[in-house]
Amino acid sequence: MEYPSRLIEDAVNEIAKLPGIGKKTALRLVLHLVKEKEEKTRSLTESLNRLRSNIRFCKTCHTISDEEECTICRNNRRDRSMVCVVEESIDVMAIENTSQYTGVYHVLGGIISPIHGVGPGDLSIDSLMSRVSANQDIKEVILALSPTLEGDTTAFYLHRKLRDLPVKITSIARGIPMGGDLEFADEITLGRSITARVLFG
Amino acid sequence: MEYPSRLIEDAVNEIAKLPGIGKKTALRLVLHLVKEKEEKTRSLTESLNRLRSNIRFCKTCHTISDEEECTICRNNRRDRSMVCVVEESIDVMAIENTSQYTGVYHVLGGIISPIHGVGPGDLSIDSLMSRVSANQDIKEVILALSPTLEGDTTAFYLHRKLRDLPVKITSIARGIPMGGDLEFADEITLGRSITARVLFG
Repeated sequence: MEYPSRLIEDAVNEIAKLPGIGKKTALRLVLHLVKEKEEKTRSLTESLNRLRSNIRFCKTCHTISDEEECTICRNNRRDRSMVCVVEESIDVMAIENTSQYTGVYHVLGGIISPIHGVGPGDLSIDSLMSRVSANQDIKEVILALSPTLEGDTTAFYLHRKLRDLPVKITSIARGIPMGGDLEFADEITLGRSITARVLFG
Repeated sequence: MEYPSRLIEDAVNEIAKLPGIGKKTALRLVLHLVKEKEEKTRSLTESLNRLRSNIRFCKTCHTISDEEECTICRNNRRDRSMVCVVEESIDVMAIENTSQYTGVYHVLGGIISPIHGVGPGDLSIDSLMSRVSANQDIKEVILALSPTLEGDTTAFYLHRKLRDLPVKITSIARGIPMGGDLEFADEITLGRSITARVLFG
């Protein structure tokens, strides 16, 4: 599409760089901002600049944080005997949202993926190892990674590194999702849910 | 959802104010920006600020423009005998994209909608009237408004205002879209396409 204005074109191209946003959506957003008061755009861009300049990562668990240490690591009521290992900060938010977990976290900052050039050295695995080794309170490491080839690879790698330390290594349960119909489950999930069956009640 | 950071929460709330973007998408975008280099966010916010501060509306046709007069109005090869009346600048872009129209435009900046509190006085209708009255070159006014209740209301209003001026008033053709299956067309469109039938070939 040709744009009647260079300013529009530049803004559309910038917004369309964001994941999952195409040029048509970008144009719609840009024309919305143009129609609204200038303060609306200012308030949006200021919040993004403030975020990007001031955001930090927790020195202990590497979750996104406003402070040197995140609210979860600073919270004395959290159970420090369990560390839940996740790929990204968004996974911490998802698990927190369930209100089912009382332990602390460790964010890897990615997943081992040779295709995308991500090796163990690019992730906060060394920091996890020294955290678990140095801290006698940690009794269990829960691997909460995506059930994909890369997630499994990362889980196996972590298991191999952690197995000599005096901690229990667990993984989140895989199975048929709540409300999921058996006939629509893929065969690998269904197969695993049978071999990994649990006592009823 | 609870956010581990106030900065994240603010940015998510700002982005979620944009039309068609919910909190989940906003969070995904925010976490993407946090993962990318700071320059990426700067370049996005600068382009939006530049757009919002410098964008203008063409003094003749009210399309979005970088200059006092838009590229279409400044283009001497455009046919100044036809003025196509549209609701928004995005409609100009859509029609330009077809490469089928050689005339100039007039952007109303909205549509008459009593429910949304938009009356004729909120649109650039006076400017259209004085443009058509003052300019003897204009022979035809093409109404290219959405086929909705509000679009039809606006078209009728414009027709009543324009009919005493020495210009032909036309409307874009309504009918079965190209590639549209007859059986799936709504009855009003299909009915109109029969009453407004055209000579074959």
